[in-house]
Amino acid sequence: DIHDWVKDPAAIYAQSFSTIRDEVELETLPEALRDVVVRITHACGMTDVVDDLSWSDGAAEAGIKALADGAPILVDAEMVAHGIIGRKLPRANRVICTLNDPSVAEAAKSLGTTRSAMAVELWRPHLEGAVVAIGNAPTALFHLLELMEEGAPRPALVLGFAVGFVGAAESKEALIQSGLPFIALRGRRGGSAMAAAAVNALAGGLE
Amino acid sequence: DIHDWVKDPAAIYAQSFSTIRDEVELETLPEALRDVVVRITHACGMTDVVDDLSWSDGAAEAGIKALADGAPILVDAEMVAHGIIGRKLPRANRVICTLNDPSVAEAAKSLGTTRSAMAVELWRPHLEGAVVAIGNAPTALFHLLELMEEGAPRPALVLGFAVGFVGAAESKEALIQSGLPFIALRGRRGGSAMAAAAVNALAGGLE
Repeated sequence: DIHDWVKDPAAIYAQSFSTIRDEVELETLPEALRDVVVRITHACGMTDVVDDLSWSDGAAEAGIKALADGAPILVDAEMVAHGIIGRKLPRANRVICTLNDPSVAEAAKSLGTTRSAMAVELWRPHLEGAVVAIGNAPTALFHLLELMEEGAPRPALVLGFAVGFVGAAESKEALIQSGLPFIALRGRRGGSAMAAAAVNALAGGLE
Repeated sequence: DIHDWVKDPAAIYAQSFSTIRDEVELETLPEALRDVVVRITHACGMTDVVDDLSWSDGAAEAGIKALADGAPILVDAEMVAHGIIGRKLPRANRVICTLNDPSVAEAAKSLGTTRSAMAVELWRPHLEGAVVAIGNAPTALFHLLELMEEGAPRPALVLGFAVGFVGAAESKEALIQSGLPFIALRGRRGGSAMAAAAVNALAGGLE
């Protein structure tokens, strides 16, 4: 019967998180990472994403601290920005998406690169200590890693959830090798919902 | 080498779509649905989503025609709205998201339901002939089906990509049984990227 659906939002969240805890082995994960895994799983409906998740030591703690200290959140897509729950952010942290900056489209065209990569150029003044959330474009992640090689200021954490068939897996492997603090989903899977979910978990746990 | 990445956006799209065509059996699908499957696969990085896809006869054709005729697009989440590529829409079709309407949060609270379900109440004046794209909330899809039972005007197509652990699979099965024209992803998987990708395919194919 279609009228039997659960209407209470708190009950829906509780039941979702409970199902995830039943089906996903969380105990073997670093404690600070568990809420991240629950929220990422919740965002995509797949209990096996944890199998492809990779992280550097202390990554979740670094993200939690950066957000608590007021760090900005740099995102590669408007969809990521709109998946971040503003009221959870501990310091009303700025969420910065430069993809639709008026200068980006033209510069990308003239340099023969993607808008996503060019948009990352505009992150330079905000990079130091930031939380970077990549939920779409491998080229944004690749270009970020190039900026790091050039000696640009380092973010506190990079959330690597680039998705797709060209460069997604490779860009996340490059992130994992980069020496930056990271949480990343290996392979082709990813997306803005997962990237935003990771931010939401670091910002406010499961509340 | 991180500097070897493909920078040309047209080449990235072409290579992505070519990989999908190599790995996904498209020939057995209705012709009008193939671009939808390619774009949905592209959005999530998973070549097996086609196995869970369900559709009513002529669904893709109905969506293409509705958009060409200028139908509005009703979405359950801002993330869906921001995944729709505006320049692809054939008639600058309106994209309507009522979730953050000032009246919704309070009404949902007082009626003990979700904001997503309450937001669908505000769709009534726009439903007739619309393309509905559900990329997040099972409760939005359930409430839409309740409106249909009450005799509300019928949309031209419902894209069912509700995601998660509570009601997602059930709401999409209810859609499949409803008699409405639909394209839906069975099970827990779904999301705003897939819902938006389906709209983009119906609006502009793979261009």
